[in-house]
Amino acid sequence: MAIVTFTTDFGDRDHYVAAMKGMVLQIAPKSVLVDVTHKIEPQSVLQAAFVIRQVWPSFPRGTIHVVVVDPGVGTSRRIIVVQYAGQAVICPDNGIVSLLQRDMQLEVLREVTNRQLFAPGQTSTTFHGRDIIAPVAGHLSRGLRLAQIGPPTSRLEMLDLPKPERMPDRSLEGEVIYVDTFGNLVTNLTRDDLAQTCAARPEAHVWLGERDVGAIRQTYARASSGEALALIGSVELLEIAVNGGNAAEQLKAGVGMSVAVK
Amino acid sequence: MAIVTFTTDFGDRDHYVAAMKGMVLQIAPKSVLVDVTHKIEPQSVLQAAFVIRQVWPSFPRGTIHVVVVDPGVGTSRRIIVVQYAGQAVICPDNGIVSLLQRDMQLEVLREVTNRQLFAPGQTSTTFHGRDIIAPVAGHLSRGLRLAQIGPPTSRLEMLDLPKPERMPDRSLEGEVIYVDTFGNLVTNLTRDDLAQTCAARPEAHVWLGERDVGAIRQTYARASSGEALALIGSVELLEIAVNGGNAAEQLKAGVGMSVAVK
Amino acid sequence: MAIVTFTTDFGDRDHYVAAMKGMVLQIAPKSVLVDVTHKIEPQSVLQAAFVIRQVWPSFPRGTIHVVVVDPGVGTSRRIIVVQYAGQAVICPDNGIVSLLQRDMQLEVLREVTNRQLFAPGQTSTTFHGRDIIAPVAGHLSRGLRLAQIGPPTSRLEMLDLPKPERMPDRSLEGEVIYVDTFGNLVTNLTRDDLAQTCAARPEAHVWLGERDVGAIRQTYARASSGEALALIGSVELLEIAVNGGNAAEQLKAGVGMSVAVK
Repeated sequence: MAIVTFTTDFGDRDHYVAAMKGMVLQIAPKSVLVDVTHKIEPQSVLQAAFVIRQVWPSFPRGTIHVVVVDPGVGTSRRIIVVQYAGQAVICPDNGIVSLLQRDMQLEVLREVTNRQLFAPGQTSTTFHGRDIIAPVAGHLSRGLRLAQIGPPTSRLEMLDLPKPERMPDRSLEGEVIYVDTFGNLVTNLTRDDLAQTCAARPEAHVWLGERDVGAIRQTYARASSGEALALIGSVELLEIAVNGGNAAEQLKAGVGMSVAVK
Repeated sequence: MAIVTFTTDFGDRDHYVAAMKGMVLQIAPKSVLVDVTHKIEPQSVLQAAFVIRQVWPSFPRGTIHVVVVDPGVGTSRRIIVVQYAGQAVICPDNGIVSLLQRDMQLEVLREVTNRQLFAPGQTSTTFHGRDIIAPVAGHLSRGLRLAQIGPPTSRLEMLDLPKPERMPDRSLEGEVIYVDTFGNLVTNLTRDDLAQTCAARPEAHVWLGERDVGAIRQTYARASSGEALALIGSVELLEIAVNGGNAAEQLKAGVGMSVAVK
Repeated sequence: MAIVTFTTDFGDRDHYVAAMKGMVLQIAPKSVLVDVTHKIEPQSVLQAAFVIRQVWPSFPRGTIHVVVVDPGVGTSRRIIVVQYAGQAVICPDNGIVSLLQRDMQLEVLREVTNRQLFAPGQTSTTFHGRDIIAPVAGHLSRGLRLAQIGPPTSRLEMLDLPKPERMPDRSLEGEVIYVDTFGNLVTNLTRDDLAQTCAARPEAHVWLGERDVGAIRQTYARASSGEALALIGSVELLEIAVNGGNAAEQLKAGVGMSVAVK
């Protein structure tokens, strides 16, 4: 049986997450269950898309990722199963896979329609995570083939993601797309984006809005304590951090703020 | 070995939960451990009773539920093991099983007294979860029979739960008993309660205090964005929600607020 | 395969913890993963040292503890593996094992240097938890011997811990070193410290700063509801609590506040 991960906006106070895990274990009792996070901001599909993209490379082929951030539950939005690099994700078709789809090779895309795999009895209109997604994950964990879940489809909902812009003077403009627990500001500028611009030149500086945070450095400790700095973070994206501090608070910055390398 | 779930008011900052899990694994190393929640409000037996009742139907027979919300630790309050539908719960005898007992058929009720099953050495007076409840859960997970844990008993502490009232005009009055992470207001009115009253009639409306929230709808999306609505939630109880929003905040409502269908 | 526990300051919003777990499972897919806490205050090595010390006795021999509170990531600080009582901890060498080292017999101390055990590809400068510590834990969980991880060392970073002071009049002075979720004030005074002083005498009282909290009692319930009291807590340290309440809030106390028995 497989590793099954869980990413939701359910928080940690209610029984919702455990209800999903129970449904998986009823079908596949030896699954290895791993929480990614249940603290996605309520209904923030973008944040879920970012988190599941970042965690993907750390898991082995065969892993099944359950992602339930589902503002459209009870509407006609579809549930899909998608495979990249030998790992599958089951989620509402609302843009959750946008970043995986941007960066990786799509291997399988199917609609989840086989009602025989759903929880027995009536399916609730408010908790498809428990009644549809978790049981299907359980069946996959037991070894069911993706082809048995439902028909292939080519339609895939995609978020409108902010794209880095390369300027005529070889400077690069992007924005903050995620703020982590430590207050690090993660941008949409990848190591590859930077390689193709002026960023490699020693006089190139990173700007957060109107603030110059200097050249790109190797590690937090290359800044003095309390100083802001830019570096390539653990997911190969440009980050702005404060050595020993919280960049979001100290620099009063958040998602959407502009970042430039020039 | 079995699935062992954990529901406590221990929060997630200290070592307390892991200490219990370690004690289970010392005895039954292949147990599958599942957190329900550790964010029960400190010493809120009612909330624990609600959460364990809701999660029950999602787990298979043989599951062992550890519930430690224990304002009376160190007093003469008893520890009990109770079985419903083939699943067992070990907890202080303080009302935690009140909702299970109301809704399900009692199969086993025993007092936990067999000291040979407790942690070796002196039992602390402040942490029976680690020293008594977790080791007993470990032994059950390894296959120990309930009869070996202690003598049968017929005494069971019950909470004084608010009961729905059916009025002569076939209207129904209840109250909010739980507020979830999303701010959904869960009431004590079940689908069955509603079936026996005026609720099925199209002109019946749900009232939260003085506010009319309309007829019972099928799904969140039947309300416009930001609108309040009533629906039967995923645990078969009447809920009041706001489509895409937080009902508790927006309607300034909480546990104890009256809800009527008339 | 082994039990692997996780203690970090990563919080529960990001993908960081799951990334470490995925790396462990890639190498040792049948490991039993247990979270201790991810809510260590950012970069608080002292709090991590306290938590890992407290949870140690609840786990069996062979357990592998991953502790990542790592203000020095990317500097030349070493990563070490240390064994006490048949359990191993892998962590940055920054004082995390200070309390284990104070209280237990050191069995193994090695530096983590064998690059063949690290994640394939370039090691990030910001996330050694994922790229070094988790893969090494995975190899240990599969049964790798500690000797294969790196060379023995005798150097060990130790925190400067507050020591209890025994006064000529047989009174004892210490301080609050940890505040738990319930607001209980845990001190650095052990049951053994107390046995060697006046504390056993019935007229000895515990003082929190200028406040007399009475004699040491057996259990919370020996105080009236809302009353402050001193007792030996579940980890054999003197604690100051409020029966049914939050001592930290009610007594306006925190880490560093002086506690005396006289």
